[in-house]
Amino acid sequence: MAQLDAALAKIDANLDAALQRLFALVSIPSISTDPAYAGDCQNAAEWLKDELHSLGFEASVRPTAGRPMVIAKAKARRANAPHVLFYGHYDVQPSDPLDLWKTPPFEPRLADAPTGTQIVGRGTSDDKGQLMTFVEACRALKETGDFPCDITILLEGEEESGSHSLPAFLAENRDELRADVALICDTSMLDRATPAITTMLRGIVTQEVVIKGADRDLHSGLFGGAAVNPVHVLTKIIADLHDENGRVTLPGFYDGVAELPAEIAAQWREIGFDGAQFLKDVGLSVPVGEKGRSVLEMIWARPTCEINGIIGGYTGKGFKTVLPAQASAKISFRLVGAQDPEKIAANFRAFVKAHLPADCHAEFMAHGGSAALQLPFDSAPLTRARAALHDEWGKEPVLIGSGGSIPIVGAFKRDLGMESLMIGFGLEDDRIHSPNEKYELSSFHKGARSWARILTALGAA
Amino acid sequence: MAQLDAALAKIDANLDAALQRLFALVSIPSISTDPAYAGDCQNAAEWLKDELHSLGFEASVRPTAGRPMVIAKAKARRANAPHVLFYGHYDVQPSDPLDLWKTPPFEPRLADAPTGTQIVGRGTSDDKGQLMTFVEACRALKETGDFPCDITILLEGEEESGSHSLPAFLAENRDELRADVALICDTSMLDRATPAITTMLRGIVTQEVVIKGADRDLHSGLFGGAAVNPVHVLTKIIADLHDENGRVTLPGFYDGVAELPAEIAAQWREIGFDGAQFLKDVGLSVPVGEKGRSVLEMIWARPTCEINGIIGGYTGKGFKTVLPAQASAKISFRLVGAQDPEKIAANFRAFVKAHLPADCHAEFMAHGGSAALQLPFDSAPLTRARAALHDEWGKEPVLIGSGGSIPIVGAFKRDLGMESLMIGFGLEDDRIHSPNEKYELSSFHKGARSWARILTALGAA
Repeated sequence: MAQLDAALAKIDANLDAALQRLFALVSIPSISTDPAYAGDCQNAAEWLKDELHSLGFEASVRPTAGRPMVIAKAKARRANAPHVLFYGHYDVQPSDPLDLWKTPPFEPRLADAPTGTQIVGRGTSDDKGQLMTFVEACRALKETGDFPCDITILLEGEEESGSHSLPAFLAENRDELRADVALICDTSMLDRATPAITTMLRGIVTQEVVIKGADRDLHSGLFGGAAVNPVHVLTKIIADLHDENGRVTLPGFYDGVAELPAEIAAQWREIGFDGAQFLKDVGLSVPVGEKGRSVLEMIWARPTCEINGIIGGYTGKGFKTVLPAQASAKISFRLVGAQDPEKIAANFRAFVKAHLPADCHAEFMAHGGSAALQLPFDSAPLTRARAALHDEWGKEPVLIGSGGSIPIVGAFKRDLGMESLMIGFGLEDDRIHSPNEKYELSSFHKGARSWARILTALGAA
Repeated sequence: MAQLDAALAKIDANLDAALQRLFALVSIPSISTDPAYAGDCQNAAEWLKDELHSLGFEASVRPTAGRPMVIAKAKARRANAPHVLFYGHYDVQPSDPLDLWKTPPFEPRLADAPTGTQIVGRGTSDDKGQLMTFVEACRALKETGDFPCDITILLEGEEESGSHSLPAFLAENRDELRADVALICDTSMLDRATPAITTMLRGIVTQEVVIKGADRDLHSGLFGGAAVNPVHVLTKIIADLHDENGRVTLPGFYDGVAELPAEIAAQWREIGFDGAQFLKDVGLSVPVGEKGRSVLEMIWARPTCEINGIIGGYTGKGFKTVLPAQASAKISFRLVGAQDPEKIAANFRAFVKAHLPADCHAEFMAHGGSAALQLPFDSAPLTRARAALHDEWGKEPVLIGSGGSIPIVGAFKRDLGMESLMIGFGLEDDRIHSPNEKYELSSFHKGARSWARILTALGAA
């Protein structure tokens, strides 16, 4: 561990210089969604390429149909070292509304807060500060000896605008990018003292259904009471999708849904997640999901059925006595464990058809979907990363879930056959996507130290 | 009855001249909704004023904030004759799409059809042809003696564009317009051989409800399964508004709903209304209303609850995994008999509130409403008009209902305390509001004869 100790000391000693490098990157307004900033995205990519090149990486900026990718590769001197792929993104969200920023978004600064020093500026947390924790760890390891692993770095420039170029890029560079494990730094800690590894991501099935009745819109006075109203049919079907206990009624829906392992359930009980506060923050007080489940289970470990949109008939100002010819809804199912997206989509369609009255028919559109992702709890990289984080933070990292999806993780699994370790040092109050985005100086500093430890631990395999 | 026979003979003898007068009126493009035709509306009003003046009416064109009204008054020579108020409208619907007209809409012509001669042109049926049946009856009565009743005529110019000036006009001229009974010629016969009097009009209560949950739109991945979804709440409430027998579940909803009198029920069974064909014409086959009721009952004599519009969440193209903060619906109840609009609106609001889960609240907007109208089946004017129509058509007129509302009838009842006899000679296939609108020559001819008989019968009181 001599090298690791030296590397950690190097990170501590060079913190000011590391901050200056982060400031340089943050000051480039690499907003991907606005074409006016395409040149800035190119500049940010070039800046990162040069930085990585100076650390001994074979680095390049690769054009895509949109913003470029940065690819950097370095091999450990020893043969047969494990190979890791690191992913981050250098693009940022737009900075408006500008008048809500206390200082200009692309003029990063340090600010003192009661909880510690903060780095303020657009992208300091999402994701420039986070990705630079990894770069600084690589620098310290390189300056104190060698990389403990073969390292490939993939930095995307369209994460904030839909990742449109990513699927084709992964497909075309599959062999170059495939590694033993992916490391993703774009998530949060549980709180400012407790590291976390995201090991569960819910999957999703999206369906749009259109219920059609009469062959035209009707006058509800002339036909009402006799002619079928597709809004009634649709609302009845939707109402029937849940039972009185909050469970989804689709046949076979819970196939593949397992209870949490006891260790994880115990961790979740202990972390003190305040479900009441979570709901209170958005004006609510009572969880509505499956009876007998905690809020954390509901959002991380249980499947759902949500109506994301519904429309039918006249929806403008005032009133129109129309009996509409059709009504439609957009419905998503969040999946966990081994739930099969194809089967659930098929069961949903069968459910709707079975509930259709005479004279109605249903049309369906799929809008994509993916199975849930679950990192095996006994995976070797996970075990090593947990120990490394414990060493740095002095407490056991929590294995958390995420209710939303992180598309890159599914793509790495599906297209490259790789599991991902999602480890990030953001905090819930970092104001990402909002004015006055910040990153804790402690996240930046101890994040770099964490990566030095994790790379060393993975390299010892 | 000597005068009536003479008047009927006069109508027969003068049919060609009457047609020329109708053609003159139809050729004025008095489209009320388009300001470009305001001058034509004025011209049509002046034409009618002059025509009525020539028949001995004290006639005037009265300005309003929109299109003018025509008011004409004539007294029978004998004292204490009954007083009738006739209502029709001289404005017409726009004529587009023009390319679907076989001949120009404002160049009226006669056309031979297998079922008889037709008068083709915009407004021939709705409502110029209809109102001129009454004017021609007045002419024949005047030319053969005297008016059997005191007659006031009110011809509106905004019926096709919302009747915005009517309420104030009725209020300001209440004393001048109030009569013993109103005669309205803007409805249809049962079929080309069977006259009809519309005696039942459904009322309406309209309500808009907005269900609100969280204080902002949420991400359905991050909050789905725990946070209340207003679309789920709204659809459940809507689904609960009907039971499995198609009855509305609002408490007290059927208070004031009576069964049809046996005589009317028998008439309706005998008229051969083809409920299956009625539905088939709009692509349907199975009536969905209250179990055990005929289609005719469902649309004429039973109350309904229909969702006229619903919206919540994301309804654009593609998909957005939003868990919306609110969802809303526009709901109308059609009323019959003595159902109380205020009570039903209140019961609906109470029903919604009783069904709200924790954390949700409801906001309501009313969009107007009116009680159902039911002409007493034993009213003297109705009995006389039935006999007069029987004499003309050789068969008993059917007392029909209408599922929609005809606002003028409610206004006459509410503001002037008058019952209305709705007697018209249109046919369902007249293509009103559509290209190639027509009126049967037999409707025009026998319609005028019918009014001569009805006025004579009412005058004999």
